[in-house]
Amino acid sequence: MTAQLVITNIRLATACQYSKPYGQTLGSAIAVDQGKVTWIGQAEDAPQAKITIDGNNGWLTPGLIDCHTHLIFGGNRANEFEWRQQGVSYSEISNRGGGIMSTVQATRLATDASLLHAAQKRLDALMAEGVTSLEIKSGYGLSLEQELRMLRLARQLQNQNPVTITTTLLAAHALPPEFASKDLYIDHIVNDILPGAAAENLVDAVDVFCEGVGFSVAQCENVFKAATSLGLRVKGHVEQLSNLHGSALVAKYQGLSVDHIEYLSNQDIPLIKAANTVAVLLPAAFFFLKETQCPPIQALRDAGVAMAVATDCNPGTAPQASLLTAMNQACVLFGLTPEESFTGVTRHAAAALNLPSKGQLAVGFDADLLLWNIESPAELSYGINLVKPEKRWIAGELQL
Amino acid sequence: MTAQLVITNIRLATACQYSKPYGQTLGSAIAVDQGKVTWIGQAEDAPQAKITIDGNNGWLTPGLIDCHTHLIFGGNRANEFEWRQQGVSYSEISNRGGGIMSTVQATRLATDASLLHAAQKRLDALMAEGVTSLEIKSGYGLSLEQELRMLRLARQLQNQNPVTITTTLLAAHALPPEFASKDLYIDHIVNDILPGAAAENLVDAVDVFCEGVGFSVAQCENVFKAATSLGLRVKGHVEQLSNLHGSALVAKYQGLSVDHIEYLSNQDIPLIKAANTVAVLLPAAFFFLKETQCPPIQALRDAGVAMAVATDCNPGTAPQASLLTAMNQACVLFGLTPEESFTGVTRHAAAALNLPSKGQLAVGFDADLLLWNIESPAELSYGINLVKPEKRWIAGELQL
Ligand SMILES: [Zn+2]
Ligand SMILES: [Zn+2]
Repeated sequence: MTAQLVITNIRLATACQYSKPYGQTLGSAIAVDQGKVTWIGQAEDAPQAKITIDGNNGWLTPGLIDCHTHLIFGGNRANEFEWRQQGVSYSEISNRGGGIMSTVQATRLATDASLLHAAQKRLDALMAEGVTSLEIKSGYGLSLEQELRMLRLARQLQNQNPVTITTTLLAAHALPPEFASKDLYIDHIVNDILPGAAAENLVDAVDVFCEGVGFSVAQCENVFKAATSLGLRVKGHVEQLSNLHGSALVAKYQGLSVDHIEYLSNQDIPLIKAANTVAVLLPAAFFFLKETQCPPIQALRDAGVAMAVATDCNPGTAPQASLLTAMNQACVLFGLTPEESFTGVTRHAAAALNLPSKGQLAVGFDADLLLWNIESPAELSYGINLVKPEKRWIAGELQL
Repeated sequence: MTAQLVITNIRLATACQYSKPYGQTLGSAIAVDQGKVTWIGQAEDAPQAKITIDGNNGWLTPGLIDCHTHLIFGGNRANEFEWRQQGVSYSEISNRGGGIMSTVQATRLATDASLLHAAQKRLDALMAEGVTSLEIKSGYGLSLEQELRMLRLARQLQNQNPVTITTTLLAAHALPPEFASKDLYIDHIVNDILPGAAAENLVDAVDVFCEGVGFSVAQCENVFKAATSLGLRVKGHVEQLSNLHGSALVAKYQGLSVDHIEYLSNQDIPLIKAANTVAVLLPAAFFFLKETQCPPIQALRDAGVAMAVATDCNPGTAPQASLLTAMNQACVLFGLTPEESFTGVTRHAAAALNLPSKGQLAVGFDADLLLWNIESPAELSYGINLVKPEKRWIAGELQL
């Protein structure tokens, strides 16, 4: 048997749940065939291979996974940022047309080509840092036609790039101006947008913004019921600015993840643990919004809840196309260890996206691989813009 | 007269002290000859040129200037970062060999080639973001031989790269273990290191770390006296962790800049204003150290003190090779406007490094130019890893 690829002279941070930090194994080589990891062991025992790479004593890790992004949007909100920094009040910024509706308007008016072009630049930035899988949410269309367009564009990005993209319908992101009430819009999501998107096979998961300025727990539950009846997994933007117990709702529906959770209360932690729901930390939004309430990291740790880390890349509250920086921010701002940040963008991020063959280096897993010229995996979280992968493979194919 | 280069169809953010934000001019074209800006005006009036570039309605800015870096050092401190995040106490980290002395040891033991190789990676990261001039400090050698070696390596980086590097002697960074007292080491700096470095023409400016854990005001003054007698300009790491009135000392010696200044007191602001000393803000260090006391931005603004922004790139307290991120951090953490951040990495940073022909786009200035595909210069400060210059020219030569 000749393998497609063997990489030797490496240290392996597998992100598997082994006893050693970062899932380190004693192996010094890996073999790949037909896009999958087929063997890990000592270099002298490696199978024959068509291509053999000397890893030069670098670290090999799984491809990084950004499990929460709003990567596709029109325009940007730099003007609004400038107003904020100039001391303009939030109400005046709103009067000037700032806020999420400015992004909705810009997205609706943008051509497919311009949305793809702008998203491609952000995707390129993520991929250069080692992101090999990511989620993209809708949520700036807020109509049947425009939400489905966003999801189709996400699928198109997937087709045009050596990367795995999961799509999430976030129609329940904000109330579009065409609707007189949130309840009427939720009805439209449940009756029209969700079934329409599902019928076109555009949806991998369904998300909601459960917040006073978003939607109530009851409204979110209506969306979750409709999603579940279509066989779709759910997740939620919850407990970012206040505590509505959206996390308990997500857990009730066996949701994939609860995201933000700065205001998560201890009583809801056993619920998300029991539901195997991943806690997705979004420190970039915390940073940009100058928040002060941190997620309950120690309580999540004590309960054994899986914690992921993501960029939340979006134009309003997290204008950041860097997952490595999010790893650093999760450490500095939330107190994660570098190992927790690493697991948070590999194994736990894969769980949050329901990608069971990704996020770990083990036999049978997808061969999305990164080779880093670093002394320790802690270097991935240690700084900002200091490291990039030396080599990247997607399904065992070298990317240049 | 045929110019070397004309760029048309641009918007110009000159960073000059004009009335419009960002020093915007009404011109839509620029001409360059012999490495200098020779003309700015309307495209239809542009001179003939050997090369004409269509700027595609992008923004043209001066090259960015990082006026405070410790870019050359051995090793990294990711292990120490990991210990901190794991909850290991500072005293235990010190027992394990952490702290600045670990960098001094790693730097002393590193070969020239490995120091250059590691610094080159950080320099490449800065240059890709548009940095065309930067300062590099010594301060991890702490002996005559090793401090001069660091400065020679900085000069070598200058020779090997299309960039302007100024060198700063920071021998008074920490007490090396070979010396029994700070006073004895200061004597060595004054009598041996400083004259030796100056004799080899390795020093553009002289810096000190004026702090309880660094050197006293009296010790710093001895260094400043020696520097001044050699005709060298001075600057200081001052008021970072406490208020020793190091800023007043820097002002007394007409220093180029006071750097950090989180604990600067209002009484010293008129002194630095009168001395034309630049206030250099280092938000990355503030971020990594989780500091809470901000520099007195409003008081500096009210007094008309020039404020610059820099990375402080160093392995212990600011492991960050991104000046654009520092611009964002200065806005988010310190409350600067995007325009203040922009001026802080152009005109004011040039003043901090005593580079009077850089940092502005005007006739007679160096043609270090950046072309950005952005809608507004606020986008440079708005996010993290969202923008990069589309084109860069050094002295009018296109860099690829
Ligand atoms: Zn989000
Ligand atoms: Zn410094």
